[in-house]
Amino acid sequence: MNIITITGFAAAILTTASFLPQAIKTIRTKDTSGISLFMYSLFASGTLLWFLFGLFSSNMPVMIANAVTLVFAVIILIYKIKFQ
Amino acid sequence: MNIITITGFAAAILTTASFLPQAIKTIRTKDTSGISLFMYSLFASGTLLWFLFGLFSSNMPVMIANAVTLVFAVIILIYKIKFQ
Repeated sequence: MNIITITGFAAAILTTASFLPQAIKTIRTKDTSGISLFMYSLFASGTLLWFLFGLFSSNMPVMIANAVTLVFAVIILIYKIKFQ
Repeated sequence: MNIITITGFAAAILTTASFLPQAIKTIRTKDTSGISLFMYSLFASGTLLWFLFGLFSSNMPVMIANAVTLVFAVIILIYKIKFQ
């Protein structure tokens, strides 16, 4: 693996994993006042489209990364709608 | 442009643009209590690596999308650190 591939993998892991601490914090505290409903509506829609893009183009890493991110984003979105 | 390319473009626009309403909300309200510091630390680092990945691999769309997202993410991160 060269430096470009390693950078891409590290980037994908970081941006995918980053939504886990937000989901945990939101589930624990139910504090969603500072969270933008519009952001998570756009973001969850975009992540769903990335998943479909991965599916259509048989790109497994894009599919998996966005399936994971979509789960976190939808959890945060549901909490935002329920507890805003 | 075929359906796969259109889906990819739409996905990129949605996930990139989604951080704008969050940045605007955070700047306006300074309410960062529900926002995860850990999320934005990981996310900004990941977005910086995506930008470098785009730079190293001469992938202009990846570079531009992640440069824009990085600006929004760093604004939210700075507000989180300053007003938490």
